[in-house]
Amino acid sequence: MFEKKELKKRSENLSEWYTDVVLKAQLADYAPVKGTMVIRPYGYAIWEKVQAIFNDMMKSAGVENAYFPLFIPHSLMDLEKEHVKGFSPELAVVTIGGGEKLKDPLIVRPTSETIMYAMYAKWIHSWRDLPLLMNQWNNVVRWEKRTYLFLRTTEFLWQEGHTCHATEKEAGEMVIRALDWYRQIYEDYYAMPVILGTKSETEKFAGAKTTYAIEALMPDGKALQGATSHNLGQNFSKPFEIKFQNKERKEEFVWQTSWGLSTRSLGGLFLTHGDDSGLILPPKIAPIQVVIVPIVKTESNTNVLFSYCQDIKEALTNGGVRVRFDDRSEPSVGRRFNEWEVKGVPLRFEIGEHEVKDRTVTIARRDTGKKKVFDRNRMLVETQKLLEEIQTHLFAKAKKFLEQHTHEVSSYDEFKKIMSSTRGFLRAFWCEDADCEVKIKEETKATTRCLPVDSKKEQGKCIRCGNPATHRWMFAQAY
Amino acid sequence: MFEKKELKKRSENLSEWYTDVVLKAQLADYAPVKGTMVIRPYGYAIWEKVQAIFNDMMKSAGVENAYFPLFIPHSLMDLEKEHVKGFSPELAVVTIGGGEKLKDPLIVRPTSETIMYAMYAKWIHSWRDLPLLMNQWNNVVRWEKRTYLFLRTTEFLWQEGHTCHATEKEAGEMVIRALDWYRQIYEDYYAMPVILGTKSETEKFAGAKTTYAIEALMPDGKALQGATSHNLGQNFSKPFEIKFQNKERKEEFVWQTSWGLSTRSLGGLFLTHGDDSGLILPPKIAPIQVVIVPIVKTESNTNVLFSYCQDIKEALTNGGVRVRFDDRSEPSVGRRFNEWEVKGVPLRFEIGEHEVKDRTVTIARRDTGKKKVFDRNRMLVETQKLLEEIQTHLFAKAKKFLEQHTHEVSSYDEFKKIMSSTRGFLRAFWCEDADCEVKIKEETKATTRCLPVDSKKEQGKCIRCGNPATHRWMFAQAY
Repeated sequence: MFEKKELKKRSENLSEWYTDVVLKAQLADYAPVKGTMVIRPYGYAIWEKVQAIFNDMMKSAGVENAYFPLFIPHSLMDLEKEHVKGFSPELAVVTIGGGEKLKDPLIVRPTSETIMYAMYAKWIHSWRDLPLLMNQWNNVVRWEKRTYLFLRTTEFLWQEGHTCHATEKEAGEMVIRALDWYRQIYEDYYAMPVILGTKSETEKFAGAKTTYAIEALMPDGKALQGATSHNLGQNFSKPFEIKFQNKERKEEFVWQTSWGLSTRSLGGLFLTHGDDSGLILPPKIAPIQVVIVPIVKTESNTNVLFSYCQDIKEALTNGGVRVRFDDRSEPSVGRRFNEWEVKGVPLRFEIGEHEVKDRTVTIARRDTGKKKVFDRNRMLVETQKLLEEIQTHLFAKAKKFLEQHTHEVSSYDEFKKIMSSTRGFLRAFWCEDADCEVKIKEETKATTRCLPVDSKKEQGKCIRCGNPATHRWMFAQAY
Repeated sequence: MFEKKELKKRSENLSEWYTDVVLKAQLADYAPVKGTMVIRPYGYAIWEKVQAIFNDMMKSAGVENAYFPLFIPHSLMDLEKEHVKGFSPELAVVTIGGGEKLKDPLIVRPTSETIMYAMYAKWIHSWRDLPLLMNQWNNVVRWEKRTYLFLRTTEFLWQEGHTCHATEKEAGEMVIRALDWYRQIYEDYYAMPVILGTKSETEKFAGAKTTYAIEALMPDGKALQGATSHNLGQNFSKPFEIKFQNKERKEEFVWQTSWGLSTRSLGGLFLTHGDDSGLILPPKIAPIQVVIVPIVKTESNTNVLFSYCQDIKEALTNGGVRVRFDDRSEPSVGRRFNEWEVKGVPLRFEIGEHEVKDRTVTIARRDTGKKKVFDRNRMLVETQKLLEEIQTHLFAKAKKFLEQHTHEVSSYDEFKKIMSSTRGFLRAFWCEDADCEVKIKEETKATTRCLPVDSKKEQGKCIRCGNPATHRWMFAQAY
């Protein structure tokens, strides 16, 4: 139970609103251990949708799901030097097992490259074993002291795909394919426009040859890294000795990729769509697309009203719409309206005596707040149309925001000025020197987000140091 | 690649055959850390089926999925004394996080009662919040030094359902309901007959008031505990202070249940159905129900043959059958037959020139080895019939075995004799004294498996000590 007035205002403080709405919409809650959280059923249902959608994408491309162990021996982790260096500060380590101190402490997986590739080396022998396309849905641990629900937690859920290929070209194609799946998840389902690009040397995945990422822009002008897809080259296959005999019977190392999408992405989704009344969930990913609220008056014939609602529920369900019939007797209708608004349900059906008498439905849109009455006979088709409209509208709104907050800048003063006010994505020449990147971060809090895939080679000067630069990079302050 | 002759004989040594077949069918593999394993795609696909089936059962009863953290603070674990005592010897403990020694070490969940109930106490206030029906699919860790693939591993996957109710009666009904879901999974999908009953005080779940279990019998006459459903009474709600205001505005503690089914059950499935050629998977749970193997001769028109196979594949797929078209050019057809036999695919379609010419399909049953030719036009309906027949046949065979190996015994000599030869389930009077139970185990390796739910109160004497006994318990040596 909660009062609408308790909800923090999104228009005043995005971050406070976010935490408040995640808790009040019962998407998640803080767990007893610092840095950890519980994903509650309403939030988990969204993750289950993501899993179903992404499984379809992967499986149609021949990727198979598997499960690898949670615990990784330190010796395995150590095999790829950049990898272990990158992850060391974030590791959780088991030192006691079955009541005894362990001789070899175990790392709780922060990602599974090492444990998976030790197995791949055992399984792959011939070109016939390639490509090997495997994915797992699991939990990983990267130590955090502060919790930011969904966006920063010690443990999170994700999928991690790990593939091996006979040629560099094929691996390169896989990296882009996975990246495009992520783009589809974000754009077509989350209704979030994204920018695709490669990471700088500093920002790339520890152990990767190249990291591709998709980057989204939050309403406060900060960027969120949405998902990553890594071209690992032979960086792991060499130390892990993942070799195959090619058709000419010669031994070669495989070419590898890995790519992941996590529950962190849900944080981006919740941040992106909402207003002072709560969340607004894009229909394609909403666990409940329509909530039916009967308006019971003292003089109402409740039986007739409820059976009219029940009939509507069944008609929508049969039409593939996800419906909840809110037949509770308390709290009040007003409170329940607020509750469903906080939860961001795209459409609310208000059904009272009038609707029953006239054989109509009154439908309120969560995104615009507009109400309209439809004939009962046209209900299903109008509902489907409205759901599509909302999906399109949310994307268009976010797209407009992204465009309005993406600027090409050529002076460092302008860069700093924007970064200290409205923020957003800034496209600027950069010399690709790591020290210069650090300085920019110190001076503006902005980091290189990516080199957009559509970026062309040009002649330019670094926005900060003035040295020659060949590409305009995308900068932003990041979550 | 493997040769059929390499496979260990099931008829000679069940345990060696089991490990061999699990590895060769690529269901699982040993992982680098002792006690852990990898679930490979073919094995994981079966688990995904179980998840889909069980999610349907649960969700139609209003159970919602959620996700709770992996790490449990010791202080929470300690709240229920029997619970922590029961699990202490099996715990894995994280003592280092983010490069620092932790002040409060964290337990890697062996089960989630304590972490979930700490949250439940926060969420439940009123009778309106009940029943609370929640489940999670996750990984848990219980330390093991030896690995027995699927059946005994340090980490395993499972679902754990945890519910809270306003009355003891309602909780009691939930316990039985979950138990019946498990019976359905075993009997209707795994084709394994099971016995339902309650556990003895010694064998029950640490912290439960009553533990119900389903018990299956393996081909070596040993029992496997298939799943458990616990009536927790108020054993946890009191120390965790999970209270609600009832309709009369009085505070009460909730009544709780918890129930789980794990990947261990897959071990039982693989042990139960098989022969010297490998696994036999019940069609309802088989990831691949039909494999189509084209028989290519040098003079064959491969294009025509392959398009005939492809057409069959599509017809079956559209009919809801899970099909694999084995269009590989190597290894040899004979080797590939063996491979699919080891993997236990219920039906093999052999398609050669004759079949194309006559518009027929030759179908070989994995369970009986019998081959039959069907008209192409009747293929789909005959396939569906055969799949049902195999499912029924496997269950009937296992049921017969269970019946033949379940004996009512009244003398301890007979009890010991059977336990040292054919084993199986023995139904015998027991005084319900824990010391006597220990002695029986020492002397016969048999433990009380359960008190069957259909057991009646009788007058009898304990099989071992002769003291008065009121019920015949089910004994067996157990996995």
